[in-house]
Amino acid sequence: MAHRVVIIGGGFGGLYAARALAKAPVEVTLVDRRNFHLFQPLLYQVATGGLSPADIAAPLRFVLRRQKNTRVLLAEAIDLDAERRRLILDAGELSYDSLIVATGARNDYFGHAAWKRYAPGLKSIEDATEIRRRILAAFEAAERETDAEERRAWLTFVVVGGGPTGVELAGTLGEIANDTLKDDFRNIQPRESSILLLEGAPRVLPAYPPELSQAAERALIRLAVRCRTGVRVVGIDREGVDIETASGRERIQARTVIWAAGVAASGFGEVLARRTGCRLDPKGRVYVEADLTLPGRPEIFVIGDLAHARDRDGNPLPGVAPVAIQQGRYVARLIEGRLKRSSVGPFRYRDRGSLATIGRAAAVADIGRWHFNGLAAWLAWIFVHLMYLVGFQNRLLVLIQWAFHYFTFNRRARLIAPDWRYFARSREGPLSGPNPPEPAVPVG
Amino acid sequence: MAHRVVIIGGGFGGLYAARALAKAPVEVTLVDRRNFHLFQPLLYQVATGGLSPADIAAPLRFVLRRQKNTRVLLAEAIDLDAERRRLILDAGELSYDSLIVATGARNDYFGHAAWKRYAPGLKSIEDATEIRRRILAAFEAAERETDAEERRAWLTFVVVGGGPTGVELAGTLGEIANDTLKDDFRNIQPRESSILLLEGAPRVLPAYPPELSQAAERALIRLAVRCRTGVRVVGIDREGVDIETASGRERIQARTVIWAAGVAASGFGEVLARRTGCRLDPKGRVYVEADLTLPGRPEIFVIGDLAHARDRDGNPLPGVAPVAIQQGRYVARLIEGRLKRSSVGPFRYRDRGSLATIGRAAAVADIGRWHFNGLAAWLAWIFVHLMYLVGFQNRLLVLIQWAFHYFTFNRRARLIAPDWRYFARSREGPLSGPNPPEPAVPVG
Repeated sequence: MAHRVVIIGGGFGGLYAARALAKAPVEVTLVDRRNFHLFQPLLYQVATGGLSPADIAAPLRFVLRRQKNTRVLLAEAIDLDAERRRLILDAGELSYDSLIVATGARNDYFGHAAWKRYAPGLKSIEDATEIRRRILAAFEAAERETDAEERRAWLTFVVVGGGPTGVELAGTLGEIANDTLKDDFRNIQPRESSILLLEGAPRVLPAYPPELSQAAERALIRLAVRCRTGVRVVGIDREGVDIETASGRERIQARTVIWAAGVAASGFGEVLARRTGCRLDPKGRVYVEADLTLPGRPEIFVIGDLAHARDRDGNPLPGVAPVAIQQGRYVARLIEGRLKRSSVGPFRYRDRGSLATIGRAAAVADIGRWHFNGLAAWLAWIFVHLMYLVGFQNRLLVLIQWAFHYFTFNRRARLIAPDWRYFARSREGPLSGPNPPEPAVPVG
Repeated sequence: MAHRVVIIGGGFGGLYAARALAKAPVEVTLVDRRNFHLFQPLLYQVATGGLSPADIAAPLRFVLRRQKNTRVLLAEAIDLDAERRRLILDAGELSYDSLIVATGARNDYFGHAAWKRYAPGLKSIEDATEIRRRILAAFEAAERETDAEERRAWLTFVVVGGGPTGVELAGTLGEIANDTLKDDFRNIQPRESSILLLEGAPRVLPAYPPELSQAAERALIRLAVRCRTGVRVVGIDREGVDIETASGRERIQARTVIWAAGVAASGFGEVLARRTGCRLDPKGRVYVEADLTLPGRPEIFVIGDLAHARDRDGNPLPGVAPVAIQQGRYVARLIEGRLKRSSVGPFRYRDRGSLATIGRAAAVADIGRWHFNGLAAWLAWIFVHLMYLVGFQNRLLVLIQWAFHYFTFNRRARLIAPDWRYFARSREGPLSGPNPPEPAVPVG
């Protein structure tokens, strides 16, 4: 019987591991709760109405349909029997010879679970359509509002976290307020919106070289985004955000708050810790060996955002797509090597650099010794993102929408759902406006 | 003060009325619960994964942004004070000089409200994403199912109603089973699916000439769709459908049932009846005068699917987009005429013909004395639908997706959401499989 490889998670790590095993003499089962691979780097564009969910979601079965040694199973992994090498699913069990765990990360509110309701993070399609709904609904509520102070609160948008995702979100919000919605309303001027980007470090994009942080801040200022650095968020409720700065405590009245401040590893790390005795770091990530296996469990690999792996200098690798992709391919090579009894060295991350975009023709690039920004960085960003987007059709459609967006400033994916009645209740219900009384029903 | 026109509903009737009033010396307020105009004729393509919701939804504010005499209000009309000429909204009131009611239709289950849960209809974006979820989830459940009979029930799809929507849905289901999902599964053969189209009349497309019904049936048979005509549905539950035929009662085991059998007018007709004394037909449509006004209320117009208007021979006009568009334009002309004190004759529907598509390169056309089918009808269908789709960008993106679909058989908008857990409960919960225990959370 062929060597059985079970992969949990169809994100970058899991999908690239599966693809790299296409020609190996193994039987691959890819398990995911969702039927699609999500291209997370463009999720913020769904959250801001620039793209539709399907543009950045490739059906896993379709992507792997020609790979005859691979099957896709729509299921949730809930437990592990490490001794008998069996993965426990919500319905049934799976035996494995090698297990690749690539279940990724989720939003982390630093112990303030109550903030989640008022400040959604951006990890899933549902998160993105919910954020889109809140942004568009806030402008609608402002258009209807007669009280000036209330209206200002509706037109204040706070993004918590000045990393790449926060910068991308804030920059896009600036474009929406200044350009996209310019002529859409009769009672409000969307460009009078106040967009705040809050960051705890002394500068935005703290993982980038300082001159690129400055370039990003300048680009954000041109989009009327105000960056507030050295700021600690100490409270979030439905009316706004409480912050602490060097000069004391402060209150920001804002009806729309988006969380881009942190992620923690997904829950499967706890299953691994319980069942194999492996250790987790404070963010819930699993400490792995140099070959990405669990200590004492050479048949279990952990990759991507769930893994705490280190570079040559001992620094933990960042939770970005290139790390997950390279780890997925490395593990596939290692498994194939073991079957051939050829040895494969430890995992080495080849850092090809980082890119973050701010808005039209504005981005920053940190590629080896090259630090640059502006149009060249933006074009590099477009090229890299289209290259890694799965599916030729998706690439073409996204490129066309970007081209339209560039020349017309329009964003077409602007559906608010379920419907207006959630707002109508704003004066009566316990929650006001875009926080619906029931779980939101997003529509793509 | 300018003459105030209030329009309820941003569908074909309401939107084309608003646009036709662009140059008139009036103040227009378009009221809708949704922030977008929905191109309903292509809704079945969202339900079958060919298009994304945003492809067929144009933001009303964007469409009307340059029309300075017009504002859009996101609100729900809940009552009417006809004496004082005030429309009561969920939040606030609006005074009008002319009122255009264009609130459209909803699914009608002929008094069997309980069927709705098991057989969703196709009127809204939520309906479409829910149907998409059920179709894709049924194939996933079949892939996991080990019992042969259960698996057959998961792979049986029933479309109730053989009008244009039912024919389009059944034909597309045939394409999905035969082509789109061909290589996607390992345990099932999607082409072994059984797709049934049930129609009460003796032939499908009963409103078309008999030779086109025959052509449609032949095209459906090529897609492995079985048409059962002269069939009456007497029961729908979560396990299947009960029908009555000439030869007696029969049970069809099917886990996916789609309702395309009938629509009734939206609820605002009842408000009109209560507040103005106007009469409704058995489908809830409002009997209107030859100029589309309410009897005795020349300032209130009813158009589109909510109106019961008649052609010269006394037959009621069908609930299709061309009728609503022409009525919207007519009412705009009439209101402008009244202000100029010039008279406008009664409304006359100019029937430019009907088109229905079945699948790739298969459609039927009934245009005046010309009845034709096949490729020519299909190209005519594509041309007409793209022409009326609002927004140049939408047109281009839809055309590209159709071209891809034509050449690759792929359908890209195949997201199942919320997630797999709804299925995991199928053995435990009161409902099996794609009927989730809570209201479905669609994702575009």
